[in-house]
Amino acid sequence: MIAITTIQELLHHMRTRRREYPDDRIGLVPTMGYLHEGHASLMRRSKAECGFSVLSIFVNPLQFGPNEDFDRYPRDAERDLALAERNGIDLVFMPSVQEMYPSKPLTSVIISQVTDRLCGASRPGHFDGVGTVVSKLFHLTQPDRAYFGMKDAQQVAVIQRMVDDLNIQVEIVPCETVRESDGLAMSSRNVYLSPDARAQAVVLSQALTEAEQAVKEAGMTVKELEARIRETIAKAPLADIDYAEVLDYPDLTVPSAEVDLSQYPNKLIVALAVKFGSTRLIDNRLLDSHGGERHV
Amino acid sequence: MIAITTIQELLHHMRTRRREYPDDRIGLVPTMGYLHEGHASLMRRSKAECGFSVLSIFVNPLQFGPNEDFDRYPRDAERDLALAERNGIDLVFMPSVQEMYPSKPLTSVIISQVTDRLCGASRPGHFDGVGTVVSKLFHLTQPDRAYFGMKDAQQVAVIQRMVDDLNIQVEIVPCETVRESDGLAMSSRNVYLSPDARAQAVVLSQALTEAEQAVKEAGMTVKELEARIRETIAKAPLADIDYAEVLDYPDLTVPSAEVDLSQYPNKLIVALAVKFGSTRLIDNRLLDSHGGERHV
Repeated sequence: MIAITTIQELLHHMRTRRREYPDDRIGLVPTMGYLHEGHASLMRRSKAECGFSVLSIFVNPLQFGPNEDFDRYPRDAERDLALAERNGIDLVFMPSVQEMYPSKPLTSVIISQVTDRLCGASRPGHFDGVGTVVSKLFHLTQPDRAYFGMKDAQQVAVIQRMVDDLNIQVEIVPCETVRESDGLAMSSRNVYLSPDARAQAVVLSQALTEAEQAVKEAGMTVKELEARIRETIAKAPLADIDYAEVLDYPDLTVPSAEVDLSQYPNKLIVALAVKFGSTRLIDNRLLDSHGGERHV
Repeated sequence: MIAITTIQELLHHMRTRRREYPDDRIGLVPTMGYLHEGHASLMRRSKAECGFSVLSIFVNPLQFGPNEDFDRYPRDAERDLALAERNGIDLVFMPSVQEMYPSKPLTSVIISQVTDRLCGASRPGHFDGVGTVVSKLFHLTQPDRAYFGMKDAQQVAVIQRMVDDLNIQVEIVPCETVRESDGLAMSSRNVYLSPDARAQAVVLSQALTEAEQAVKEAGMTVKELEARIRETIAKAPLADIDYAEVLDYPDLTVPSAEVDLSQYPNKLIVALAVKFGSTRLIDNRLLDSHGGERHV
């Protein structure tokens, strides 16, 4: 496995690889590091589907708000490299902020509408930063496929939309969320949780499982379903709800208030962001029209 | 020469070409059609430098304001194809609006600061449309080099900045403005001019030539130079100045009012936009610190 930090090396390796194996598929797994089993599942999928797999590790300052956790975002390069190697990665690109943004970037890739709600609303500018850095990584790596976890379902919708709109020649592969044994979605931010908060954080996946059942009830409305979800989460005394929404997926528009969700014709997403102290967790579930889980 | 209208055909041809001639350079000449000798010079440069030259012809609605000339922008596909073939183009991509924007695009590539002045100020949203469509064309064609005329000097600065910021792997090649025998910069919009306006339009290049001399005068200030330029243009009774500015290039920032331009340490650009009736013409000249013309 090759580990590099500069754009020049990355371009060189990609060029060489492409020239030597023109028929090989190239996979990209873009991450912010502090890798866990969720990331490992993306890497293994890339390994299985591609002849050459690239992992990027970059905590992108552009996608953090001024009061967010950029500085304290967890980092552990050594452990990440070991995990990448074990999971079939061929090249790790781990640039510095200076390498990715040698001067103040004047160009932004801005995706509207699908960013109006959820994390787009809670974290102004977040998806501008995501769109910009992901397009940079796509240009540098020119992968055939790029692997993203569905825990960040809005991110997947946003990136798919960017790729479609800008004709970026890459296939976005959404991968199922990996969970702890009690159902908590794996996240690099889980390490922030106090033992009490960690125990209570299970309410997110519980609320989603309940929503999956509740949406099948005849006459279930958006308002009623969101109220049920909030009620479940409220059982965790440390939980502070940022958002708990039921939306159309992948358009992320709001179904009309009166619609009977059990008869809803499109895919739905239940999306949650819940704070435990200063740690903000997100989770979601896709539901199809008759309330079954939608596999991605 | 191949002429195609769909993205699918374009991707197919580019993929095949790249596979068969992996060492050949690919050149792209993005245009809005109604080609003239200026475009022809870009095509010939691409032909000379690249093994395969692509011309795109697309009048991009995104870069026209609501009161601009999108609908009446001149078009002549047949003549364009003949000119392209004569000038060494291998493939012409001429998509419909529907092909380029099958649904309302939600993604924009937005370049700030270098778009604050000149056409960026006069035509709000213009460079968002340019950035977006040029990035689409780059993704579809994946050229090694892309050729742009320096008549649109701000466009060149904007695209170079976009390419740098987003790490798009293409070399931008700025090409010198081609002029009519009396000095008028070639433009598809010149056909709009009445005979009187056409005769008077020569004041743009005259004002630029005078500016080139005037900037060498000791103590010349931005204000004084701009006043001289305006004075020259005002001699044409039909001329209505949109802007006449002296800026730093390629940053397109305003030099301080008191600075002695004859001693200016960086490149300068004199940029003009002048309306003759409803026809808006632009032209510019790059000046170096000692007032000589800067060749691109």
